[in-house]
Amino acid sequence: MATTEWNRRHILSLEDFTAAEYDIILQTAASFREVLTRRTRKVPTLQGRLITNMFFEPSTRTRSSFELAAKRLSADVLNFAPGTSSLTKGETILDTAKTYLAMGTDMMVVRHQQSGVPQTIAWELDRLGAQVGVLNAGDGLHAHPSQALLDLFTIAQHFDPDAPRTALLAGKKIAIVGDIVHSRVARSNLWSLTACGADVHLAAPPTLVSKPFADAFASESGSLSVHWQLEPALENADIVMTLRLQKERMSSNLLPSLREYHQQFGITRDRLALCQPHARIMHPGPVNRGVELSSEVMDDARISLVQTQVTSGVAVRMALLYLMGGGKSVA
Amino acid sequence: MATTEWNRRHILSLEDFTAAEYDIILQTAASFREVLTRRTRKVPTLQGRLITNMFFEPSTRTRSSFELAAKRLSADVLNFAPGTSSLTKGETILDTAKTYLAMGTDMMVVRHQQSGVPQTIAWELDRLGAQVGVLNAGDGLHAHPSQALLDLFTIAQHFDPDAPRTALLAGKKIAIVGDIVHSRVARSNLWSLTACGADVHLAAPPTLVSKPFADAFASESGSLSVHWQLEPALENADIVMTLRLQKERMSSNLLPSLREYHQQFGITRDRLALCQPHARIMHPGPVNRGVELSSEVMDDARISLVQTQVTSGVAVRMALLYLMGGGKSVA
Amino acid sequence: MATTEWNRRHILSLEDFTAAEYDIILQTAASFREVLTRRTRKVPTLQGRLITNMFFEPSTRTRSSFELAAKRLSADVLNFAPGTSSLTKGETILDTAKTYLAMGTDMMVVRHQQSGVPQTIAWELDRLGAQVGVLNAGDGLHAHPSQALLDLFTIAQHFDPDAPRTALLAGKKIAIVGDIVHSRVARSNLWSLTACGADVHLAAPPTLVSKPFADAFASESGSLSVHWQLEPALENADIVMTLRLQKERMSSNLLPSLREYHQQFGITRDRLALCQPHARIMHPGPVNRGVELSSEVMDDARISLVQTQVTSGVAVRMALLYLMGGGKSVA
Repeated sequence: MATTEWNRRHILSLEDFTAAEYDIILQTAASFREVLTRRTRKVPTLQGRLITNMFFEPSTRTRSSFELAAKRLSADVLNFAPGTSSLTKGETILDTAKTYLAMGTDMMVVRHQQSGVPQTIAWELDRLGAQVGVLNAGDGLHAHPSQALLDLFTIAQHFDPDAPRTALLAGKKIAIVGDIVHSRVARSNLWSLTACGADVHLAAPPTLVSKPFADAFASESGSLSVHWQLEPALENADIVMTLRLQKERMSSNLLPSLREYHQQFGITRDRLALCQPHARIMHPGPVNRGVELSSEVMDDARISLVQTQVTSGVAVRMALLYLMGGGKSVA
Repeated sequence: MATTEWNRRHILSLEDFTAAEYDIILQTAASFREVLTRRTRKVPTLQGRLITNMFFEPSTRTRSSFELAAKRLSADVLNFAPGTSSLTKGETILDTAKTYLAMGTDMMVVRHQQSGVPQTIAWELDRLGAQVGVLNAGDGLHAHPSQALLDLFTIAQHFDPDAPRTALLAGKKIAIVGDIVHSRVARSNLWSLTACGADVHLAAPPTLVSKPFADAFASESGSLSVHWQLEPALENADIVMTLRLQKERMSSNLLPSLREYHQQFGITRDRLALCQPHARIMHPGPVNRGVELSSEVMDDARISLVQTQVTSGVAVRMALLYLMGGGKSVA
Repeated sequence: MATTEWNRRHILSLEDFTAAEYDIILQTAASFREVLTRRTRKVPTLQGRLITNMFFEPSTRTRSSFELAAKRLSADVLNFAPGTSSLTKGETILDTAKTYLAMGTDMMVVRHQQSGVPQTIAWELDRLGAQVGVLNAGDGLHAHPSQALLDLFTIAQHFDPDAPRTALLAGKKIAIVGDIVHSRVARSNLWSLTACGADVHLAAPPTLVSKPFADAFASESGSLSVHWQLEPALENADIVMTLRLQKERMSSNLLPSLREYHQQFGITRDRLALCQPHARIMHPGPVNRGVELSSEVMDDARISLVQTQVTSGVAVRMALLYLMGGGKSVA
């Protein structure tokens, strides 16, 4: 496996990832995806290593995915839950991180409601000379790199199941629909998709996306357009990525109602007729049925890649932990 | 091991279980019971497999028992906890189940406060063509098959520690005392005990058991009687199964007071004199001391099988997961 | 390894521990400390054994440390969490313990807000003839032996990294500063430090330490003094152990304010000038920064042993579980 070029201890944002790095991840994830189809879906790669999940913002789905990825690699896992923690006792986040460092943690998977917390922990660990990697599992509105990487893997694998690679995305039209400006998932996907040469089209009400926002992600490889209607984004699209709508957006007057949102930006079977015939729908989950997607679309396994994304998530997270751990042979 | 006749992917209710199936479970559980007496109480049977505990209704005791059974079989375990979950984010129960399916779950252990949820999940998984088994760990007032099966194992093993089998129950008088009509444990036990030919006697106040209720469980093999007093049920009984009294029954006026309940239906040493000399007391736990049982009875290891039930629980749940997993050799 | 002299099934208090026993623990912990520096930081010592963490009083830090120690020894672990437990259903603590005993628990790690609960569980298990050890992970104001033992290991290892032993503590001046009278950590440390011959100096406001309190811990080996000012305790001290200040002490009028406490008893770089040049600071964590310690002192790795204590914690807890399990060869 071509891990010789892998030089990152931390995975905090995809902002400066290269196509070569994306290809290493896709290739490594593909080999773990194969491991997960065996009867014994486990490799001894990280046996005796310790991965600590520090989810300051609770998330059953993402924590389960990381916990499972760690177990499939035979690592030991500690789950830090803030509810019952010392944080309520006046300890700082860095003190908590240093405590788990002192216990022998090899990698920390960090989710926090505030942007920048994983980066701050990574800086502190580096300052202390610790050889410990930090994986950002979602920080505020900033980034959610493992989600964007599993999305990338899902798309690439959709175009070539046997050899998922970045080249497959070149020129593909990918629509991203929904609450873009408040989405760390969208931000991370914008870095990866444009770097891989995709033709990305954002569609949302003006309160949820703006041209200056999109300009920040401009890249030489791909292209990026902003639409305030759904239709131009869907036209001839290969992939439609929908985003979860946070219901609190309504109370802050950014949206009139969920019903109205669905009428204008919800993905239905009728609207899919605008896309390429082989187009597929994605969503990071959990889906608000009847808001971002009609139930009919979501439950149609010929159209929806939502379950595939979940499956990809385990393989991609195994790949990330493996690469961060400086891994050699997979199985 | 005679698992050739085992054809069930799911265990949802005991309604249509045959004596042959009960015997396979008893025999398999006996061999795991032996494994649990070794110094290394573990077998590699389900290594690399994934069991997800989905306890929508919280339960430390039953979840611990299933978690331990899975670990003793060397499976990986994910615990889904509804409190911190996506359900609060608008995801349906089936979406949650499909997410864990997509992560690679091999078996789901499901508890829910509403009757029918495990069945609904099982139907959906079958519809999707998933080769994934669902084990009902208690749904509403409907069923709690693993509890009834561990009760069956406890009774059969009591009569013959070396070869627990259904034939041992034929003609034995088994009293079931307490809040029968609201008990999923009682319902599941009624299917198994009558199918094994036991002579079952129900005892409860008229608000907590009725003749039409009992008629629903009539069987050719065993016999079933209803009493509104305790004494006729205890007379010459071999086994007395007590049920947990939910304190909310009082507020709905089904019971006058816990004190009065204990005076009429509580099991005390005096009342046990009515039973067979070798009679034993059971309870699914946790016990309300001084209500269903006097502390004196509960703590007398010569009379009480309550701890044995807990021990049986791990062995029986190992057997169920093993059989659902299509297992071959045990150790 | 010299475990021939180890005869304790339970570790509940250090009150009657001998220097020989402390030396066995230090020596065993040192060998596990070495295991924890290997690439695969795991030994198969307790494979197939079951350790149940029963934390009636929640604690992420201590529970994580015990959970990790158990996993490093390859044991299976069950975590009992009171929030979702049967205790709210009327079950007694002893019933809970007996349930986990019946599931096959080999060792119970018990924390409870009331003094004496681990002892009560241990008595009950002994009465039942169970061969199950109880480790007190903190009970009320009474004791926290594993914390004191990891403190002892940290100190001994500081004086001789290669061969930590009790003899190294003879005549060393150790200051204990803070809320001594309400601290189970201080109580346990007083037993161990005086038994090892240290010269212990307590410093606290008169509301938080008294001479009669100290007299209870008088020993032939070490010496013990009480000061109501910080300075005489710090003068020429080799080690300064600080204790966590519970903020509720202020509401009960035992302290004027955190600010005033820090002015009189907080450890700052200036005050450390009174100590030996090589003096080190300890704290059981979590630290109230700017109260017990200035951030400057706490974050100075040349002065603070706080992180070392956390690392020692895993090794010492492995040693305790190993010794209680009647272990033979370590690796």
